[in-house]
Amino acid sequence: MSGNRFGTLFQYQSWGESHGPAIGCVVDGVPPRIALSEADIQPFLNRRRPGQSKFTTQRQEADEVKILSGVFEGQTTGTPISLIIENNDAKSKDYTDIKDKFRPGHADFTYQQKYGIRDYRGGGRSSARETAMRVAAGAIARKILSDVTIRAAVVQVGPHKINRDNWNWNILHDNPFFTVDADIIPVWEEFLDGRRKAGSSVGAIVEVVASGVPAGLGAPVYDKLDADLAKALMSINAVKGVEIGAGFDCVTLGGEENADDIRIGADGNPVFLSNHAGGILGGISTGQDVVARVAFKPTSSILTPKQTIDVHGNETDIVTKGRHDPCVGLRGAPVVEAMMACVLADHWLRHKAQNL
Amino acid sequence: MSGNRFGTLFQYQSWGESHGPAIGCVVDGVPPRIALSEADIQPFLNRRRPGQSKFTTQRQEADEVKILSGVFEGQTTGTPISLIIENNDAKSKDYTDIKDKFRPGHADFTYQQKYGIRDYRGGGRSSARETAMRVAAGAIARKILSDVTIRAAVVQVGPHKINRDNWNWNILHDNPFFTVDADIIPVWEEFLDGRRKAGSSVGAIVEVVASGVPAGLGAPVYDKLDADLAKALMSINAVKGVEIGAGFDCVTLGGEENADDIRIGADGNPVFLSNHAGGILGGISTGQDVVARVAFKPTSSILTPKQTIDVHGNETDIVTKGRHDPCVGLRGAPVVEAMMACVLADHWLRHKAQNL
Amino acid sequence: MSGNRFGTLFQYQSWGESHGPAIGCVVDGVPPRIALSEADIQPFLNRRRPGQSKFTTQRQEADEVKILSGVFEGQTTGTPISLIIENNDAKSKDYTDIKDKFRPGHADFTYQQKYGIRDYRGGGRSSARETAMRVAAGAIARKILSDVTIRAAVVQVGPHKINRDNWNWNILHDNPFFTVDADIIPVWEEFLDGRRKAGSSVGAIVEVVASGVPAGLGAPVYDKLDADLAKALMSINAVKGVEIGAGFDCVTLGGEENADDIRIGADGNPVFLSNHAGGILGGISTGQDVVARVAFKPTSSILTPKQTIDVHGNETDIVTKGRHDPCVGLRGAPVVEAMMACVLADHWLRHKAQNL
Amino acid sequence: MSGNRFGTLFQYQSWGESHGPAIGCVVDGVPPRIALSEADIQPFLNRRRPGQSKFTTQRQEADEVKILSGVFEGQTTGTPISLIIENNDAKSKDYTDIKDKFRPGHADFTYQQKYGIRDYRGGGRSSARETAMRVAAGAIARKILSDVTIRAAVVQVGPHKINRDNWNWNILHDNPFFTVDADIIPVWEEFLDGRRKAGSSVGAIVEVVASGVPAGLGAPVYDKLDADLAKALMSINAVKGVEIGAGFDCVTLGGEENADDIRIGADGNPVFLSNHAGGILGGISTGQDVVARVAFKPTSSILTPKQTIDVHGNETDIVTKGRHDPCVGLRGAPVVEAMMACVLADHWLRHKAQNL
Repeated sequence: MSGNRFGTLFQYQSWGESHGPAIGCVVDGVPPRIALSEADIQPFLNRRRPGQSKFTTQRQEADEVKILSGVFEGQTTGTPISLIIENNDAKSKDYTDIKDKFRPGHADFTYQQKYGIRDYRGGGRSSARETAMRVAAGAIARKILSDVTIRAAVVQVGPHKINRDNWNWNILHDNPFFTVDADIIPVWEEFLDGRRKAGSSVGAIVEVVASGVPAGLGAPVYDKLDADLAKALMSINAVKGVEIGAGFDCVTLGGEENADDIRIGADGNPVFLSNHAGGILGGISTGQDVVARVAFKPTSSILTPKQTIDVHGNETDIVTKGRHDPCVGLRGAPVVEAMMACVLADHWLRHKAQNL
Repeated sequence: MSGNRFGTLFQYQSWGESHGPAIGCVVDGVPPRIALSEADIQPFLNRRRPGQSKFTTQRQEADEVKILSGVFEGQTTGTPISLIIENNDAKSKDYTDIKDKFRPGHADFTYQQKYGIRDYRGGGRSSARETAMRVAAGAIARKILSDVTIRAAVVQVGPHKINRDNWNWNILHDNPFFTVDADIIPVWEEFLDGRRKAGSSVGAIVEVVASGVPAGLGAPVYDKLDADLAKALMSINAVKGVEIGAGFDCVTLGGEENADDIRIGADGNPVFLSNHAGGILGGISTGQDVVARVAFKPTSSILTPKQTIDVHGNETDIVTKGRHDPCVGLRGAPVVEAMMACVLADHWLRHKAQNL
Repeated sequence: MSGNRFGTLFQYQSWGESHGPAIGCVVDGVPPRIALSEADIQPFLNRRRPGQSKFTTQRQEADEVKILSGVFEGQTTGTPISLIIENNDAKSKDYTDIKDKFRPGHADFTYQQKYGIRDYRGGGRSSARETAMRVAAGAIARKILSDVTIRAAVVQVGPHKINRDNWNWNILHDNPFFTVDADIIPVWEEFLDGRRKAGSSVGAIVEVVASGVPAGLGAPVYDKLDADLAKALMSINAVKGVEIGAGFDCVTLGGEENADDIRIGADGNPVFLSNHAGGILGGISTGQDVVARVAFKPTSSILTPKQTIDVHGNETDIVTKGRHDPCVGLRGAPVVEAMMACVLADHWLRHKAQNL
Repeated sequence: MSGNRFGTLFQYQSWGESHGPAIGCVVDGVPPRIALSEADIQPFLNRRRPGQSKFTTQRQEADEVKILSGVFEGQTTGTPISLIIENNDAKSKDYTDIKDKFRPGHADFTYQQKYGIRDYRGGGRSSARETAMRVAAGAIARKILSDVTIRAAVVQVGPHKINRDNWNWNILHDNPFFTVDADIIPVWEEFLDGRRKAGSSVGAIVEVVASGVPAGLGAPVYDKLDADLAKALMSINAVKGVEIGAGFDCVTLGGEENADDIRIGADGNPVFLSNHAGGILGGISTGQDVVARVAFKPTSSILTPKQTIDVHGNETDIVTKGRHDPCVGLRGAPVVEAMMACVLADHWLRHKAQNL
């Protein structure tokens, strides 16, 4: 009810502030007897970890996850899995001059309005640091979805889109941009360097693809698979738009182009001849790839002065110094993957519960 | 859990199939002592009702709603409000030839995969007829949000966008397109006529604006106001994309352009100088207009033959005759309004519960 | 959240007032392809129906249930099952003189305190008439639990307990008391006749036994099977106590007597040598009979004048005329069975969802 | 869904095993700007802490709680409050000989049946150690209920009941039995000493009273205040029965005795002349004291050999050595108080959300 919890059957409760002693989450509903250790989670956290290139925040966090419960002799027991990551490099002094000012485009103003109090250090609970727990939970979700492959790529940075003909999943983790088009890398490097030096920031689009999803996942009407995906993805910090399959582009198509024809494949199973639907019809997976795209806004933590007010109601200006990502969408890719994994794991368990 | 229920504090359980004896919903969590009668709900249902112009399905339904519980002597009592609408014009014979075939772009295939059984008459539970109950529930949600104005306009049909300089809310209910640009009406009429005669269909974009929303609505992290909006809107039949404020366009902006400056207005209250955020920061309302846009796909019920398979695994072709909307997005506008109302009413009650 | 809904995976939303046009519920989460018709539900409603002997209220209700959705060609479809029962014999005039007075022992006072408004006719939402929907939902729950037998017997009326040596399930539905001891029948008849003529009322204890429950149902810690049973049973109108297995009597036992020894039976399966645990250990079913006992208070609708106040804060007296049960516990037995069925069906589905 | 979470608006997620590195919980839904520190929680934990007299287990745990999030500069922020207690004195070697045997009366058998795996050390998740987190959460719940006093007393140990005429709350925390009758103390001391030396154990009854509860808390029908109390109390380890107000004794009363008369008090407010209802009518609080009684079974960890089986299906005997409470009901009193506090805090917030 308080909005710090994800899911229905696969679920987790997240907690922690950017500059508190630690952040963590409790993952519940995981079936018993699944092999699990920190080594299953850490690699995903490492991908999201800040400070790995000049295009991400210089905050240095080991982001070393510890499992405190729910695993016995290397296997899940069906009881809650408590995960914790200590905050090591929380430089609270960086934030003291913005204690009383609301950074435009940030949650400072709305948290103050809602609660009448806020932990201003690093954004407190509203910090993107919370997404580390999404990535950790997502790593556990993947263990439930053993035959599903989930990958997210950055497909646009500012105005610069990838060439989809170059799509190559093999390079996804070999570049600092989580992209799949080798040719776009120098373009983005130059573009981001310019933005960073100008004290500005830039948005991005991330595309996520889940392969191997069986037909039948998703619930009709209000908990459609695409509806739950939309919520999970929109809940990521800085996201302003979500689309499934052809998305907004389907508006200009005719029904005869947009609907995906069905044939019987060589193996005797149904085959769709296209995938405008993004793998979902009527809120339920078709067995095709589930495909979504997510728009990340440019971060509002920039060096350009902005007009704002303070908590006392006075007009003032603000420059956000601190350490920030020029393009938060880049580090968004592992988070987008994680949320896809969490949604699919939840509906996987829900689907099992819905049939005798 | 089964996906037929909306909301947490303001909530409703929907039920019914397109060609069953009736459809209905049970709205629960409504505060007591609110004046309520069928007359508060019926006008919204009338706007959504089919058969009102040549651009919507010719199915004739009175869509007369009855309140069966929860209201006593003209006031809500705090107990569940049961609403029912009888299905009068369900022509089941129209659908007998598609009993065994899966219509491409429809939920036929996925319901069969999920449940191993489906009510094929008119799409059964997956029919857009269910959206009547969303509109009814939305009408009750508006009673909770007495100072909030919620209006949705169609802003694009196929490739034809409105001219935003012409925006005029006053004509919203005076045209069959729920549009706010008088000049676009003849363009769309000609375009839709062509599509309808060609047995084709077309998509649309609907924009919804909620004015008068107080600051502080929404929960952080997973139940952000925009996340819950994204889910509610994506759950509407035929929706493939949702964006908030500047949405996908914010990707090409710099942070200094995108973040909305804050000043103190003449009345001493905070004023934002722009609204790229769509009235939401950190998942919580700012007090500005809450703005979202929704992409409706072209309906898949078209006269052009499509390739498909049947329940026995044979390849075949299909033409969907029946009675259908050439542009489902048109009738989507009242449904989009309703979902905005339901999300805001839910977070309104949640916000009250979160402060002593 | 509003308290009108039962369950997590097997769930239903109940609605309706005693003297409104109808009462109903929407059962959701039922797996698809289960044979279901009104004929599966009506017999259970008939057992609970009032007016069948001089020991129950003389209100005459056919209690004829109709299925409005979720069943297609005789089978469940996995979509919500809407049930409705019309109120035929609602004599609202009986209640007009208590419109402004709070009946002691009734919910009149607390509903007024909570909501500031109440449907005073027949108790409105607080009427035991609502339990008809529990019985209807329970009948559907039994279809999920095909190998489980659930039976409830009245074991005590006022001070008169049955002789447990006479226990005979075969007579359960052949007497107006839902009892299993033939010898107690004349004792209770005479006792209840005396109470009825004196304008008084009396309490009762109901014992429910579920046989054939597999080991493993129930969740640890907060949703223990016995905890969920306690809630479901305590939620029945007029119930003031719930105990599992040996219940309150286990307080005087030593641990060596109370713990049930385990052996291997002739079939190679575990066998417990006693059942003080009532079939539940650590909140999870053992495979033994699940046993609970429920205390029903004497109804407060009696002919003896009681001291009370009215809505204006004046002291006054009240006699509840109307038509009422001298011993509500008698008609409680079918409701107790129904709640046991609903709890077990819910945990049955939950258990399936918790294992891959 | 997994049963490790309590509540709807005031809620907490519990985690941890008896012999893992730590136990903890995440309390969510707490309103902002409430003064809170570890010093508000620790005194309640100290009361429940083992090793304080010869009548409780000799396990030595400091049970020092740490707050990891949700509190800033001494006040709650409205975000999740993560609590952690390290396990210091977990002697896992004590349990190695029962690794493969199921202790009668324990959850060993059912966890193995449900999950196919269990952390056998100290009962793992099923250990009463988990109740420390209930007490911690309850301490926070009390901060929400600032005008409510919640006290629980042991009123019966084995066959020995207190004399209710001696009831004296002032001695509650001055004796090792949480009792309110000074005269019963030597009786219980002698009785428990005998049981302890005999390697046996004994049950107890705890009575809890909440004073200052406003009228109107509780939801009708399924989430009645007494129903939620019954669930919360029955979920405590070793509890086998729950009753409200007159409880099982009301069965032998007539309606005219059981219903509590209402008058207008000297202050102009309603006054009830008795409290058989236990402060709850129709599931909603009346404003009187809320009163419940809870039966704790004798612990099954005894020195008397019991017949059982092992995980391989062989018959065997077992003696539970370890360190255990001869009467778990004694340490149950602070836990019963805590669950009452949690239920009331939850309905307090729910009540606020239900009225505009």
